[in-house]
Amino acid sequence: MSPDTPVGADERPPARREGGRSARVREAVFSAAAELIAEGGAERLSIPAVAARAGVNPTTVYRRWGDAAGLLRDVTANRLAPHDPPPDTGTLRGDLSAWAAQTLGTITTTEGLALLRGSVACAATSEGPSPRMAARESQLAAILAHAAERGDPHPTLRQTLDYLLAPLYLRVLLNLAPADTAYADTLVDDLVRHYAKPD
Amino acid sequence: MSPDTPVGADERPPARREGGRSARVREAVFSAAAELIAEGGAERLSIPAVAARAGVNPTTVYRRWGDAAGLLRDVTANRLAPHDPPPDTGTLRGDLSAWAAQTLGTITTTEGLALLRGSVACAATSEGPSPRMAARESQLAAILAHAAERGDPHPTLRQTLDYLLAPLYLRVLLNLAPADTAYADTLVDDLVRHYAKPD
Repeated sequence: MSPDTPVGADERPPARREGGRSARVREAVFSAAAELIAEGGAERLSIPAVAARAGVNPTTVYRRWGDAAGLLRDVTANRLAPHDPPPDTGTLRGDLSAWAAQTLGTITTTEGLALLRGSVACAATSEGPSPRMAARESQLAAILAHAAERGDPHPTLRQTLDYLLAPLYLRVLLNLAPADTAYADTLVDDLVRHYAKPD
Repeated sequence: MSPDTPVGADERPPARREGGRSARVREAVFSAAAELIAEGGAERLSIPAVAARAGVNPTTVYRRWGDAAGLLRDVTANRLAPHDPPPDTGTLRGDLSAWAAQTLGTITTTEGLALLRGSVACAATSEGPSPRMAARESQLAAILAHAAERGDPHPTLRQTLDYLLAPLYLRVLLNLAPADTAYADTLVDDLVRHYAKPD
């Protein structure tokens, strides 16, 4: 899989080919939903409120997304999934550090944090990782694959998810302590020092 | 601080000395709230619904807890905080493994998971860790202190939170992959192998 193919994109039902109007409706609905989530939290998202804010007919929103949970899942995937290719700085440590900084930049904004908390609510009713989380995992997998191609020692994906992604996300989700790039670099240093092994 | 003093208990406003009736109301409200959360998720918790289920006057609930967020926080602290003393098996590895098994036993039940997801919603509006999370942290601190007293090498609290508690909680919260005791023991093994150092 190419590193910038969003994993899980193929899980969604095949969309009809979108014309200009359809794409505009989609963008208006996503923007309205993201604003409402940032203002009131994902748990208060409702289709009528989104439709009113976006200036579209509620029926259109119901037909396309079914319910608030379906819309939340799609908005989260659209807004929080990484759109850039994974960092490629030439070193494993540099790539992981840049990935962590990018990730923090996305999930610590007001909108990003509200969406992330919303995706925890979504997780209750879904199987496996969300498309958004899967996309972020696939970026880490690409970074590790680059290290392997260069012949550099590297940790496994499981170790990278558990010892870099997990503490970074949990600190942000539970508002535990400042989650900044200095903290992220401590995680990266520990991961590389203890787990980087030759293939 | 004694390990079984719930951290954060002193953050709440001083309660009047509770008589039998007051304690019964509190227990009825907590049970009703926990049931409703398990049924419909923390985001749908409302004071009128809790009062109806508990068979108490809504005014009583409003007066005591203020709003649904305040009640959620208190229920979560009451139901998810560890009530047992931290494990004391005689070895660091045994203590951490038992702690992880206890924690998984609490947070993977339907009610526990709903409360944990609710506490993520709470975190949005609160500063620092919830009383429940603080209590679980203080159990880990006690386990590390026991190791230090025995003269055994041990990781720091930061390392234990980031490399044991965080991946365990994130896997459960985001429904990522099976979170069982075998997985927890992998985390414990990694933590002890790489981070246990003499004082």
